Amino acid sequence: MNEFELIDRLTRALPTNGSVVIGAGDDCALLDMGLPERLLLFKTDAIVEGFHFTKEISPEKVGHKALGRCLSDIAAMAGTPTAAVVTLALPKEFDPDFVSGIYSGMNALARRHDVAIVGGETTTNPERILLSVALLGWAPRGKAVLRSGAEAGDAIFVTGELGGSLAGKHLDFEPRLAEARWLAQHYSIHAMIDLSDGLAGDLRRVIAASRVGAELLASAIPLSIEVRRQHSRSSNSTKTPITAALTDGEDFELLFAVASRDSVPLLDAWKQQFPKLKLSCIGRITAGEGVTIKDQRGLRLLSDHGYVHFQ
Amino acid sequence: MNEFELIDRLTRALPTNGSVVIGAGDDCALLDMGLPERLLLFKTDAIVEGFHFTKEISPEKVGHKALGRCLSDIAAMAGTPTAAVVTLALPKEFDPDFVSGIYSGMNALARRHDVAIVGGETTTNPERILLSVALLGWAPRGKAVLRSGAEAGDAIFVTGELGGSLAGKHLDFEPRLAEARWLAQHYSIHAMIDLSDGLAGDLRRVIAASRVGAELLASAIPLSIEVRRQHSRSSNSTKTPITAALTDGEDFELLFAVASRDSVPLLDAWKQQFPKLKLSCIGRITAGEGVTIKDQRGLRLLSDHGYVHFQ
Repeated sequence: MNEFELIDRLTRALPTNGSVVIGAGDDCALLDMGLPERLLLFKTDAIVEGFHFTKEISPEKVGHKALGRCLSDIAAMAGTPTAAVVTLALPKEFDPDFVSGIYSGMNALARRHDVAIVGGETTTNPERILLSVALLGWAPRGKAVLRSGAEAGDAIFVTGELGGSLAGKHLDFEPRLAEARWLAQHYSIHAMIDLSDGLAGDLRRVIAASRVGAELLASAIPLSIEVRRQHSRSSNSTKTPITAALTDGEDFELLFAVASRDSVPLLDAWKQQFPKLKLSCIGRITAGEGVTIKDQRGLRLLSDHGYVHFQ
Repeated sequence: MNEFELIDRLTRALPTNGSVVIGAGDDCALLDMGLPERLLLFKTDAIVEGFHFTKEISPEKVGHKALGRCLSDIAAMAGTPTAAVVTLALPKEFDPDFVSGIYSGMNALARRHDVAIVGGETTTNPERILLSVALLGWAPRGKAVLRSGAEAGDAIFVTGELGGSLAGKHLDFEPRLAEARWLAQHYSIHAMIDLSDGLAGDLRRVIAASRVGAELLASAIPLSIEVRRQHSRSSNSTKTPITAALTDGEDFELLFAVASRDSVPLLDAWKQQFPKLKLSCIGRITAGEGVTIKDQRGLRLLSDHGYVHFQ
């Protein structure tokens, strides 16, 4: 049984109550706690030494990443983060300066986004550091953007450039909170997700939740400088740049669907508002199923595992 | 550097914002999210295989304990829990039935207290299972009970019986949510905490937060059947029953301070309301510092580490 089969099994019968608007399955849970104009967002995420970071990198970046991943999920719902609690599991012989460094990085990012860190739990995990962050936020009632609202004909957009995140960006990405809120305030964003597992996999989540299909235009997918560099350096690199952009993961950019008539005004206004961050229209939502990708050799299907399947 | 020194260092400069009423340092954080009549409670807690449970015990009890610890913290503030998110860190070769069992136990306890489980994160921790639960709840504005309000002259009460929790209770305790809310509704509870580290250590937290002292009456401390049994069985047991009751930990009972004039009416009403659960008056809050304990041999001081220090 893999992780996804396990999650499917566990989430089938979770307890619910009258406060739950959206439970497990979107970027954050959405809760109605009785605020007249707001719904709450609730999310947890964890990083583990040896998988998401190593002891060789600066601890400030570890803390940045731990909180940043949750902030990116709040951004994916066009929300505003408020307060976090942190579980810190440490080997018995921990380095106090490394741990303080983790908190320095987390605190700095929290302050930039006006997030309070209101508590935590320290516990023992002898073999490796594990950090779990739970984050509370909010969105105006009716304005949180889900994964499930994409409609056939919508244009698909992505912020930034994709792929090669492991070269460094996965440790110092900036969650797209301001950008997401601006998008939701000014346009009718039908569906949104943050890119954590790679464009191919995360787009599949959106179309599954929305019961639609998608068609990507390969030449429109923005490639990071890293994947372009990696490709030019080694002729025997295992992934082509486009495959890297589709599957590398940990981009922490926004992927969203918007009514096609908004495409040109949106691109125009975006350049004024966020001149330093690229925004790309990379395809469209279709009435079908699955994700296809169009390049010079024609139309191909993306496989379940996010890789380009050459038919 | 031990856990407490580390926590002290980390909590000195945590980011805060306008929503924070109480940050790190009490049983839960207390947040003002704009609800006219309520404040929110926010808490995280974690359990780790090999420390808080083993693979030999039933997974349902593991799940019960993971959520129960957080519920007990909500109880300590006289709050009502609403929704939880769960981080589940697993070895790659996990047993799906054990994991499903964990969720069965957690879900059953959640349903009994009308708590929704609204999301989670699964990640890899190769050497052992780790479960971190974050819980959101609420208390009527001005009615959450803190650790910091104990006053000289208050009577000190404890629910249930103490000590010997490792014999089984630590896995199937019932969080005292209804009891705590009833107490806060009917009496002026000045301070409250749930007993996780043992009466001696947790009472020290209350008096430190309240800047008072405490005097316990040894003969009044309710001893669990387990510590009484353990003592009668082995003449060479390392702890006396009273020391076990003071320091064993994981009792998950309520410890609270209330105006002394309320003591008799409270004991009387409690017997009507909760006939199956013992309530004991075990001492009083003093104007001094530290915790003393009175037994047949006189008055003694409890040391910093919770053990009775024979002077």
